[in-house]
Amino acid sequence: MSATRYAYLGPEGTFTEVALRTLPEAATRELVPMVSVPAALDAVRNGEAAAALVPIENSVEGGITATLDELTSGAPLMIYREVLLSISFALLVRPGTQLSDIKTVTAHPAAQPQVRNWMGTHLPDALWESAASNADGARLVQEGRYDAAFAGEFAAAKYGLVPLFTEIHDAVNAQTRFVLVGRPARPAAPTGADKTSVVLWLGDDHPGALLELLQEFAVRGVNLMLIQSRPTGAGIGNYCFAVDAEGHISDRRVGEALMGLKRICPNVRFLGSYPRAGVAVEDVRALRPGTSDAEFVAAADWLARSQDGRA
Amino acid sequence: MSATRYAYLGPEGTFTEVALRTLPEAATRELVPMVSVPAALDAVRNGEAAAALVPIENSVEGGITATLDELTSGAPLMIYREVLLSISFALLVRPGTQLSDIKTVTAHPAAQPQVRNWMGTHLPDALWESAASNADGARLVQEGRYDAAFAGEFAAAKYGLVPLFTEIHDAVNAQTRFVLVGRPARPAAPTGADKTSVVLWLGDDHPGALLELLQEFAVRGVNLMLIQSRPTGAGIGNYCFAVDAEGHISDRRVGEALMGLKRICPNVRFLGSYPRAGVAVEDVRALRPGTSDAEFVAAADWLARSQDGRA
Amino acid sequence: MSATRYAYLGPEGTFTEVALRTLPEAATRELVPMVSVPAALDAVRNGEAAAALVPIENSVEGGITATLDELTSGAPLMIYREVLLSISFALLVRPGTQLSDIKTVTAHPAAQPQVRNWMGTHLPDALWESAASNADGARLVQEGRYDAAFAGEFAAAKYGLVPLFTEIHDAVNAQTRFVLVGRPARPAAPTGADKTSVVLWLGDDHPGALLELLQEFAVRGVNLMLIQSRPTGAGIGNYCFAVDAEGHISDRRVGEALMGLKRICPNVRFLGSYPRAGVAVEDVRALRPGTSDAEFVAAADWLARSQDGRA
Amino acid sequence: MSATRYAYLGPEGTFTEVALRTLPEAATRELVPMVSVPAALDAVRNGEAAAALVPIENSVEGGITATLDELTSGAPLMIYREVLLSISFALLVRPGTQLSDIKTVTAHPAAQPQVRNWMGTHLPDALWESAASNADGARLVQEGRYDAAFAGEFAAAKYGLVPLFTEIHDAVNAQTRFVLVGRPARPAAPTGADKTSVVLWLGDDHPGALLELLQEFAVRGVNLMLIQSRPTGAGIGNYCFAVDAEGHISDRRVGEALMGLKRICPNVRFLGSYPRAGVAVEDVRALRPGTSDAEFVAAADWLARSQDGRA
Repeated sequence: MSATRYAYLGPEGTFTEVALRTLPEAATRELVPMVSVPAALDAVRNGEAAAALVPIENSVEGGITATLDELTSGAPLMIYREVLLSISFALLVRPGTQLSDIKTVTAHPAAQPQVRNWMGTHLPDALWESAASNADGARLVQEGRYDAAFAGEFAAAKYGLVPLFTEIHDAVNAQTRFVLVGRPARPAAPTGADKTSVVLWLGDDHPGALLELLQEFAVRGVNLMLIQSRPTGAGIGNYCFAVDAEGHISDRRVGEALMGLKRICPNVRFLGSYPRAGVAVEDVRALRPGTSDAEFVAAADWLARSQDGRA
Repeated sequence: MSATRYAYLGPEGTFTEVALRTLPEAATRELVPMVSVPAALDAVRNGEAAAALVPIENSVEGGITATLDELTSGAPLMIYREVLLSISFALLVRPGTQLSDIKTVTAHPAAQPQVRNWMGTHLPDALWESAASNADGARLVQEGRYDAAFAGEFAAAKYGLVPLFTEIHDAVNAQTRFVLVGRPARPAAPTGADKTSVVLWLGDDHPGALLELLQEFAVRGVNLMLIQSRPTGAGIGNYCFAVDAEGHISDRRVGEALMGLKRICPNVRFLGSYPRAGVAVEDVRALRPGTSDAEFVAAADWLARSQDGRA
Repeated sequence: MSATRYAYLGPEGTFTEVALRTLPEAATRELVPMVSVPAALDAVRNGEAAAALVPIENSVEGGITATLDELTSGAPLMIYREVLLSISFALLVRPGTQLSDIKTVTAHPAAQPQVRNWMGTHLPDALWESAASNADGARLVQEGRYDAAFAGEFAAAKYGLVPLFTEIHDAVNAQTRFVLVGRPARPAAPTGADKTSVVLWLGDDHPGALLELLQEFAVRGVNLMLIQSRPTGAGIGNYCFAVDAEGHISDRRVGEALMGLKRICPNVRFLGSYPRAGVAVEDVRALRPGTSDAEFVAAADWLARSQDGRA
Repeated sequence: MSATRYAYLGPEGTFTEVALRTLPEAATRELVPMVSVPAALDAVRNGEAAAALVPIENSVEGGITATLDELTSGAPLMIYREVLLSISFALLVRPGTQLSDIKTVTAHPAAQPQVRNWMGTHLPDALWESAASNADGARLVQEGRYDAAFAGEFAAAKYGLVPLFTEIHDAVNAQTRFVLVGRPARPAAPTGADKTSVVLWLGDDHPGALLELLQEFAVRGVNLMLIQSRPTGAGIGNYCFAVDAEGHISDRRVGEALMGLKRICPNVRFLGSYPRAGVAVEDVRALRPGTSDAEFVAAADWLARSQDGRA
């Protein structure tokens, strides 16, 4: 029952649904749209869904704070997969609408920075109104409330609309990263192209605390991919850090770095180790010499021998 | 004319207006509410306003990304002042309304995480609807659209409402930090309790680039107060960093650190040096030995003598 | 047999012998003077002696390079004990000699920097001649070759001399550190006030290699007490480093640092973990938070739970 | 008069004299052999000589402590040149002596580690006796006291000896580095392949002090070539560090690093900037990006503009 249900940030027809359907197992799951990221994650926490797909990072807006904050607090959850989706918009209209007919456009507010320049060129006089989601904007166009909606081209059919323009995106390489989140369990085995996510709280407010934290990674040759500060709720200037690092918790260098962080941070929350989307094993950056599992094992053997006077 | 106008994130009756009115010079300025942070900052850029007060950081939501992104791109602007405001909400109702009468409440979405627990206890069955601003929510209560609005207590009079409860805030120490932004000019003289804001772009994607950047500050004994990553727009995983550091650009240690960053970063944007709000000079953390201006001057003298063979 | 013999840098009557006799077990060993540090250590290597006491560091001359180089190359040896000895000289003469009679003085060359100022004051016109050892100098005075010898006061009786002056030492706190060296075996158990000695070879000549090496210690909170560079024999500018660190190889923080060094250095030679001379457990510097064995164990437990999804 | 006299570590016929004669100006100077390094340097200090050439580093024995200690204490001196000399020995004998005739050999003790293996093979039964210098050993062979002397081949003629073997050196690349030392004056202009020598005292005994010192160099991209610890005379475990760094004091990166060290160290002694021996400008390691003089100047300009609001 719940094992067969995957929640996602709805409604139907959003980029999140498209991202979810790129996962092979989605074909055999019941996909349940939820009204918000907290709602989707709560469905996982309370067992109504086996997992939830939610956006976590976007090349235009940065970290999705609602998702980061939900993962950082409350009952622990873990990330098991990530999906990268190139984002481009279509301008959806009712059949027969011409560009010159368009006086009002709508979409989710997050879409606005991604289409602002395009609108300045093609629809300089149109009025923008925010919708609860891009899919909901399409629905409002269907109902005749607005003349056009920015949404994924895939949303056209569902709402009886047609795409007047496609491939609209102000920024090149506009992408959104989604994560599949579940209740804590053993991470999937390493693939050789993995990522580890963790949330780190700094201790007493001593200068250089962040530097020390980064050195725990650096000294073991663990590369960072993302660091996002998030307020802890303890007042202005109090932050924790959501960090994505290259590698898997079962890689020795990553494990030793995590233990080092656990010792110096008042709190560490492990958010999972999972395959990197869009990166083949052969494209992973080469390890710094001295940081492979084989070298960790050899050094541990040497230490054991030294402790016995046999090195 | 424009020198007498200060823009702010409106509408009237918001916390931003209250923050702006804490500045002495506000009494002699024309205060102009704007519909958005970009609108307020554009008013400064195009000369319609001498300065604009906008929120930049909030103890519940973190960095205000709209403000950070506006300062990071477009024509350069500089921060000249900061204002810290403790945030607590009042529940505003039409005169005569009882708690038990309240079926619907409204406020800006940013207010929701700050009153969620309070609502769970006092208004568990009330329906939440988002408003464009807290002040706008109050107006809608006045018009009878909703039964109650969360807003600053100061907004009650303007909309003919009364505060049924005050001092509502889920998080202790809930504060928002606002900055007064103007066109680039010479920063105010150092006060001894100053802050310097800067945006830093990392260079080629080599591991440890962020660590190197932090070391430029650390080796000169410059403490960091805030580091926020923001996407550069060049695709997922490409970030720049908005950093607040203790001290003033005219402090030698800060100047040397900034020059070091300028040399290793492909781009650095100086956002200003300004007095720290809420921190007296005597409460500033002691400098690390060897980082005072006097010590910088003495070392420069020694170097000059050494170059002459007179050390 | 060999288990009952301890070699030392002779001849009899030197400070090394005095240092050796401070060890309780010396009372039950046959103490064998050797002509040189290499000879003493070779006696250990080839089984003629169970251990050898040799000087390794001296507060006036620094590291004793003959000892460091012998420990760095050749068949491995390990340090099991250290002895600190305050060094002061007596001026030994034949009975009846007056200060004004002294025209020639002798001693080992290493004594010269420690008595130079004293001689300038008391014997400005006396001629200095070097002897093979301080004890040998005393013997030459006994034979009438020289008028006076600087040596340990304890050497007087053996050579039929008398101390004309005692407590001669130009530098205050003049001390020599000796180490008891044996063939590799399991180190003694940690006492809580321990020292670990190791020799580290840097890899390819990249700038910052020494810094990386020190960071392996620093990130685990392991304090360094001594770092001595020694040429590797591969040409000018090629050095290895003899390092003394606080703690015992069986302390987790030390073990992890040594493994880190083993991974990044082309060669590491463990020279032993042994009790610090002259330092009580209660005088050992407090550990940096997060570096105790208990914290290492707790972090390892947390990692194991995280790998199982149970953190 | 004194301007025409160069002192050197004598006697005549030593490697130091050969090294001195490689300097073009030596042809026009009076070269005065001195009995010791302190004597040679004192001749400079008291004005009897304009400069002195003394050995400072040797690929077999490491730093020459007598020279380091003399430069570290006493009236300041500065290094103006360095000379690298490949060291190989000849076995000098009286004409007619055969290898099988040799029962005794002599040389300065420093020669012994460089010929030990050769002797083990060719003269396994010969007796070694130390001489005050290699040249003095040759003299003693001339006088018939010993059968053979290890010395520079160039010493043969002066003492009426002949070389029985040449090119004797156990270590490949055996070299000695000599420095030309004078009273403090303005260093020679940078050549593009320069070296800067400095002595650094650590402050209070806090762990990581050495690491901080190295970071002052590293953060400015200044590479270290040599670091030697020397006792300060304040008791065992108290060390200062003699450091050779790439670059010239007038290079901005070097100057800024030196000022940083001056601020954090209780004492810094600048020993000079001078051309590197044996390294052509085109063979100097490339600067790290961001550390050239041009980049320092550009960053200083940017800082000045930023301070004026014109960046």
